[in-house]
Amino acid sequence: MITKLGILFALTAGLLAAGGCASMPVKRVGMVTQLKPEALEEYQRLHADSNAGVRDLLTKYHMRNFSIFLQQIDGKWYEFGYYEYVGRDFDADMAQLAKEPRNIEWLKVCDPMQQPLPGAKGWTEMKRAYFNP
Amino acid sequence: MITKLGILFALTAGLLAAGGCASMPVKRVGMVTQLKPEALEEYQRLHADSNAGVRDLLTKYHMRNFSIFLQQIDGKWYEFGYYEYVGRDFDADMAQLAKEPRNIEWLKVCDPMQQPLPGAKGWTEMKRAYFNP
Repeated sequence: MITKLGILFALTAGLLAAGGCASMPVKRVGMVTQLKPEALEEYQRLHADSNAGVRDLLTKYHMRNFSIFLQQIDGKWYEFGYYEYVGRDFDADMAQLAKEPRNIEWLKVCDPMQQPLPGAKGWTEMKRAYFNP
Repeated sequence: MITKLGILFALTAGLLAAGGCASMPVKRVGMVTQLKPEALEEYQRLHADSNAGVRDLLTKYHMRNFSIFLQQIDGKWYEFGYYEYVGRDFDADMAQLAKEPRNIEWLKVCDPMQQPLPGAKGWTEMKRAYFNP
């Protein structure tokens, strides 16, 4: 009885952990790019919650809690992105994501709306100063 | 037997959920402020992982995954903050946090290092354009 209970307990905990509650190393990414002012409305329309976009691909490649925020600074519009990478091989997952036909199509639409920071090709990854669980 | 197993299963799931895995509404906040260039080093020292700061207070008032990132844009330094509020009364929790003596002391040190965006008093909350679980 005890053994069966123990097994069930472990199984339950394991299933819930696999569902996203395990404590595994998390890579937290903050990034920024400029949004062309003429693209402001269309960009928001494309990224509305009602639009599936490539959300499923982000999940597939272990990018969690992906948010994008918009802010005007000194007359220019910027996008700030945040996500947590919870997979086991960041470089491999990003390489696979980059090959996904739907992601390639998506970026063909979004990239021209953005104006990377000087010297950058796309998003600029920011320096993390602080984190609290 | 089935009943006992069922109770144990429910208990296990409940305990794990109470530990932070429950699916409850999450308020995702992205915010920005300017960091005075002369404060760059001291700000990072104060916010280093080795410094406890007020991390425990953020947890106490249900602010999760709080990150701050630093980025230079057009020659100025900016801080970008992200967190998830997972409590049940945001305004009440923020009001209580604002009264915590240790938080008041902390802000007395940090606030003078920052230069809020024009028209803002402290951090400026950004507009959310996108979120994916």
